[in-house]
Amino acid sequence: MTEFLRLVPPDKARTLLLSNMASPLGEDELVETTQSLHRVTAEDVLAPHSLPDFARSTVDGYALRARDTFGASPSLPAYLRFVGEVAMGTTPGFAIEAGACALIHTGGMLPAGADSIVMLENTQALPSEAGSESPAGEVEILKAVAPGENVILPGEDVKADQAVIPRGTALRPQEIGGLMALGITSVRVTRRPRVALISSGDEIVDPQTRPRQGQVRDVNASSLSALVSDSGAQPVFFGIVPDDVGRLNAAARKALAECDMVIITAGSSASARDLTAATISSLGAPGVLVHGVNIRPGKPTILGVCDGRAVIGLPGNPVSALISARLFALPAIAALLGLPLNQPHSTIIARLSVNLSSQTGQEDWWPVRLQRAPTPPHEWFAEPIFGRSNLIFSLVAAHGLIRIPADKNGLSAGEPVEVEPF
Amino acid sequence: MTEFLRLVPPDKARTLLLSNMASPLGEDELVETTQSLHRVTAEDVLAPHSLPDFARSTVDGYALRARDTFGASPSLPAYLRFVGEVAMGTTPGFAIEAGACALIHTGGMLPAGADSIVMLENTQALPSEAGSESPAGEVEILKAVAPGENVILPGEDVKADQAVIPRGTALRPQEIGGLMALGITSVRVTRRPRVALISSGDEIVDPQTRPRQGQVRDVNASSLSALVSDSGAQPVFFGIVPDDVGRLNAAARKALAECDMVIITAGSSASARDLTAATISSLGAPGVLVHGVNIRPGKPTILGVCDGRAVIGLPGNPVSALISARLFALPAIAALLGLPLNQPHSTIIARLSVNLSSQTGQEDWWPVRLQRAPTPPHEWFAEPIFGRSNLIFSLVAAHGLIRIPADKNGLSAGEPVEVEPF
Repeated sequence: MTEFLRLVPPDKARTLLLSNMASPLGEDELVETTQSLHRVTAEDVLAPHSLPDFARSTVDGYALRARDTFGASPSLPAYLRFVGEVAMGTTPGFAIEAGACALIHTGGMLPAGADSIVMLENTQALPSEAGSESPAGEVEILKAVAPGENVILPGEDVKADQAVIPRGTALRPQEIGGLMALGITSVRVTRRPRVALISSGDEIVDPQTRPRQGQVRDVNASSLSALVSDSGAQPVFFGIVPDDVGRLNAAARKALAECDMVIITAGSSASARDLTAATISSLGAPGVLVHGVNIRPGKPTILGVCDGRAVIGLPGNPVSALISARLFALPAIAALLGLPLNQPHSTIIARLSVNLSSQTGQEDWWPVRLQRAPTPPHEWFAEPIFGRSNLIFSLVAAHGLIRIPADKNGLSAGEPVEVEPF
Repeated sequence: MTEFLRLVPPDKARTLLLSNMASPLGEDELVETTQSLHRVTAEDVLAPHSLPDFARSTVDGYALRARDTFGASPSLPAYLRFVGEVAMGTTPGFAIEAGACALIHTGGMLPAGADSIVMLENTQALPSEAGSESPAGEVEILKAVAPGENVILPGEDVKADQAVIPRGTALRPQEIGGLMALGITSVRVTRRPRVALISSGDEIVDPQTRPRQGQVRDVNASSLSALVSDSGAQPVFFGIVPDDVGRLNAAARKALAECDMVIITAGSSASARDLTAATISSLGAPGVLVHGVNIRPGKPTILGVCDGRAVIGLPGNPVSALISARLFALPAIAALLGLPLNQPHSTIIARLSVNLSSQTGQEDWWPVRLQRAPTPPHEWFAEPIFGRSNLIFSLVAAHGLIRIPADKNGLSAGEPVEVEPF
């Protein structure tokens, strides 16, 4: 049992993988902006024109020249001549001259000559002689405004030719809105990386099948497929392969030829893992980079790169496979997509409910369930899910994972922990 | 300008909306488990059989009777008779009697008669007389084991008929894996709520169109559509409607008849908002519940319920629309899907880079950009994005939002803040 004598710390293992991979993919495609949620921009997006491209009002009020309101107050109003109303969505058919004003609505276009807007609540329209409700000949202005007040100027949101969305941006609802505001109805995004999934092991059967005694259904193909597609890649399943060097080799070779990355979930035994490592090394240079990572669960993870493409051997146990995929396969997919490294990621702050011990020198990932304290301030408590680390329903019961760093021998009850949603 | 005299605090506004809605939808559908990521279970899922349904080894080693290892140590090994190897995926063709042991691999089926497994590294196979590498007649056991050690018993993950996934669970990769482990290849989930989107305003044009001066492209239909679909609902677009009572009424009535919820983005002016409120009240009882929420941005939000269905009038400005939709429309969708309230949600802890003032009595939501400190410990700093609150690219530049509660008049530079990813 010498296979794990050279366990690599997880951060170093990840760096080795990423630095040997050829990334990003460097292939892109044009998609409709309305269909681009979560896709990653392949190039900087430039604004074709400024936004807004006309001066707009931000309030309901009167458009006028600021100098005409100088010193105006409720006790000493300025009196301005009413010349009309700006209809929404149109260019005003009049200009504002000295001493004049026009009714304008939020979003309306500022008439020529006007430089600012007084809010409606700071005005008093004098009743027309005929008793109409619309402003008559004059409007009382009860408050002074500065030039530019309550106006968005052309280009105040973005200027023409400005790079408004940088390359490597995962598109959110606001980017989609921004693109539409500029009339950019299609956008160039990176191609989804194709990630091959191979399940290996003599005991593994298709989930559709009723297993005989001694057999188990393939869990990893489905759970990893969901994880991979959720992270922006396209999973491609290459079937269940028995623990046979020739068949595993053939499947892996085909997968590597057709995909951008390969994930093999190894049989669980040491000999099955050796088979995976030998297969990876036979596929291309440099082959296996890491055989065994200093984490629990996930220790038997194998990381390799073959001719620029990541080939990852995950432990067969479905909990280890998911946790290890999260630590190594997802960053590799992000690199292929061209996403920047070291983005902020969000966690849930909770208090640990019990003491949790850990082996120093090894990074632990514990599934935890969050419970809200019944009394104010209703803090979240993180309850570790004990039991075997290889039962898939322990992850089903969990809200997330907590990390115990390698230099700690545990965490204490009551200690604040960062729960990573998973 | 009396329309906002009765601004409602956001938490109260949300409670009013949710408590008047008929939810959950109560309609479900059967989907393939492999296609069920992020869908919400419509019923408790029961295990059709126990998992595992046979006793399995968790290590590579020798299956044996624990009592035969009593007192075994490197200096005083127990000697057991080797009777065979358990092939993966099969029922062993032999039983373990007193004084016997069998080679077994991780995941292998425990032979009848055995109750525990000694790890390979705690054993020494004696070379066969013929010099073969496989164990010969006897194996030295160097360590005692307890009954059950290194064995997963049947039902240890889940028991037959156990409710393994409760109703109202948003399915993640691990639930999909767990379902497949049990052979559950299709799952009953709640129907995606249909959410109608109506854009109103005389100045709004389709994003495909080149706007004339005074017009702007419709941003909200696309950004809200992305937000809505990302939260598990199905957006249905009912077009751009001018500020005309008859046409807005007709569009809203059709939308309410065909969908489970309606979102109208109002024109930006007070009169356009009044039009929206009047429309909502004409659609059904109780009509408008909240006209104006004590938040910034998003104050002109209108919340209504018509015959059990939420009808939400969002401000026309795209930043307010998105932020308000996040606060009110997303919880309404979650309620329709049957998701539990008050789930933990994750944030990014950062330090505020500057002082930020706020009006007491009003809840503020500020877009912030996260920057990592260049020196250890490389904390995240949250930089508020200043400028007009109605420019869509201010949200594009942001990593998330911070909340300034109504009872605060601001936050101080250096203060820790929780950034909500958005």
